Amino acid sequence: VRAEIVERLRGAMRERGLDALVACSPENVAYLAGLVVPSQPLMRWRHAFCIVPLDGPTAMVVVDMEEHTVRSRVPGPRYYVWREFAGDCTAVVAEALRDLGLADARLGLELDYLPARDHAALRERLPAARLEAAEGLFARQREIKTAGELDLLRRLSRLTDAALHDALAAAGPGSSELELAGALTGGIYRGGAESFKLLIVASGERSQFPNVGPTERRLRVGDLIRLEIFGVLEGYLAGVCRTGIVGAPTAEQERIWRNLVESKHLLLDTLRPGASSDAIYAAYTRKFAELGVGRPISFVGHGIGLHLHEEPYLGGGPDRRLEAGMVLGVEPLLYLPGAFGLQLKDMVAITADGCELLSDYTATDTLFPVGHVARAGQ
Amino acid sequence: VRAEIVERLRGAMRERGLDALVACSPENVAYLAGLVVPSQPLMRWRHAFCIVPLDGPTAMVVVDMEEHTVRSRVPGPRYYVWREFAGDCTAVVAEALRDLGLADARLGLELDYLPARDHAALRERLPAARLEAAEGLFARQREIKTAGELDLLRRLSRLTDAALHDALAAAGPGSSELELAGALTGGIYRGGAESFKLLIVASGERSQFPNVGPTERRLRVGDLIRLEIFGVLEGYLAGVCRTGIVGAPTAEQERIWRNLVESKHLLLDTLRPGASSDAIYAAYTRKFAELGVGRPISFVGHGIGLHLHEEPYLGGGPDRRLEAGMVLGVEPLLYLPGAFGLQLKDMVAITADGCELLSDYTATDTLFPVGHVARAGQ
Repeated sequence: VRAEIVERLRGAMRERGLDALVACSPENVAYLAGLVVPSQPLMRWRHAFCIVPLDGPTAMVVVDMEEHTVRSRVPGPRYYVWREFAGDCTAVVAEALRDLGLADARLGLELDYLPARDHAALRERLPAARLEAAEGLFARQREIKTAGELDLLRRLSRLTDAALHDALAAAGPGSSELELAGALTGGIYRGGAESFKLLIVASGERSQFPNVGPTERRLRVGDLIRLEIFGVLEGYLAGVCRTGIVGAPTAEQERIWRNLVESKHLLLDTLRPGASSDAIYAAYTRKFAELGVGRPISFVGHGIGLHLHEEPYLGGGPDRRLEAGMVLGVEPLLYLPGAFGLQLKDMVAITADGCELLSDYTATDTLFPVGHVARAGQ
Repeated sequence: VRAEIVERLRGAMRERGLDALVACSPENVAYLAGLVVPSQPLMRWRHAFCIVPLDGPTAMVVVDMEEHTVRSRVPGPRYYVWREFAGDCTAVVAEALRDLGLADARLGLELDYLPARDHAALRERLPAARLEAAEGLFARQREIKTAGELDLLRRLSRLTDAALHDALAAAGPGSSELELAGALTGGIYRGGAESFKLLIVASGERSQFPNVGPTERRLRVGDLIRLEIFGVLEGYLAGVCRTGIVGAPTAEQERIWRNLVESKHLLLDTLRPGASSDAIYAAYTRKFAELGVGRPISFVGHGIGLHLHEEPYLGGGPDRRLEAGMVLGVEPLLYLPGAFGLQLKDMVAITADGCELLSDYTATDTLFPVGHVARAGQ
């Protein structure tokens, strides 16, 4: 279990007066354990828990078939194992909590994840314990990345960006969307990611649709192509999107792209500790309005890490002050129904006095010239 | 909303004395709506609900940003829309239930999915309603596939099998695991799947590890290769695994493969309505014991459809009698720690008087001869 995360969480528990935290979502178990329990996100009844007392040893509760995997990679905590086909995992969680002297403690749980059935069973098994909502506590801690998380997200953002770059650079008229997808996903694995999510390959008239996978459609001169993917490593996500053009863009496409690039620079210029998320979103929508077409997205950025979207949002949510250590996905975009779509999505970390572009591999000042190289700084 | 599914569920509700069902998991919403609400499985707070009263109109509760997508593809139900950043979706669910005259009804919910927080909020907003567990009712109905579901799973199983076949047939000594992954995933999309899950590419010594993605490792003569993928279409899954050999297998590898193939035929010979899941598993473990090495998997098959694993299990779970319309994934396998692994995973439907192999594209009587064609019936 990650000592640095445990210490942070203990600080927050002390403030809240909690005696222990019981993580149960795949994200927060991964946050503590440093690995995704493999089948937990795939089969929701394969519960895993990580218990962090204010004082005393941490503990993991895992299903029998994951015990070997987790034990071999997460040394340190006490292990409590429940058997998949032999009943209810909450019996083992309750046993672990009693064993740790927490049977009558104030326990912080993830009530936005723990199913109602398991919550009721825990309440019955631990009648003297107080079960309180702690999802906000976890979310708040996860907003501010550790140095290790930043290193991982920097590496992951760059390799994801590089894979997009190389796939677009290797394509040309006649390439199919499927060939692009193969090149892209190959690059993601080769770059060192463990897997990926949300592959979007949308060329020509398909570029107007937000979430579409690859087809046999082949690139033609004049096509725009929106290429997006989230690289995944140790449970963390980095989402990057590039838009390419086969041949020369129209004046209108150039004009729109210029607006998206100016929006990106507006964001990079204003993202810093203390900045207001609402003010940044308002500045973005003013820039967007210069286009005179389309509607702005309801948020132009959001926290990202162990989940696709985390707090804070830039737009939509409550007004927030940014802080050093936050990592955001930012994505100026325009979908023109019936015509085409352009999107520019990057990963950005808030630093002590500004921000750092993590997805800095591809030059984005012009639409990506498909079939050519577009390295930043070249 | 699918009329046939609604009718089935109404029959089960009548038996249970429920006034309405409220589906909230991505699987059961897809089961009713016939589409996966795109961001529901990705962001767990983006709740979607499908309400099926015993009498009266069905209703969907969706988040604002999915309204257009869902409305355009699911005509018929009443729509209630909640706004993502403006509060709590349970307020809109409660409003919908009141509007449908169900404020004091017996409601069947998925208490193994609905988070404790949302359950508590619903209870508070609908103090006169009785909220009961109905996850078992949904699971039971989903065990028996409709003709439409069977058609889809047949098509999906075959295209998944064909993509595995073509990727292994196109490979050879020197091919990298990443190249195989690219060929395989390309084939999955080309065959008509929308996406895929759980890609496993495990060659040589890596074939002993259960869940590993592709690397830059290149095939050498004498390598085994375990290639597995789940094709995904409209939320349904079909998982198939083939094991190939580069060049000639050793006598030991041939002997093990023969055992796995005999296990497959044993399963195909015994899977039929009325058969006992425990008896089938016991027969499988007897066959496995002939190998004299390794340990048998704790279940050799499981239901599959909108979730990776569904009831019934062949082994592990309670003894069940099979029924026509069930679809099972069956997977004889052997992992030899420190050496190699072989796996043979197929999709099978229980018919009126036996079973039908859905993944029937690849001949599996011998290890797949990598670089050659292994079409069944050729």
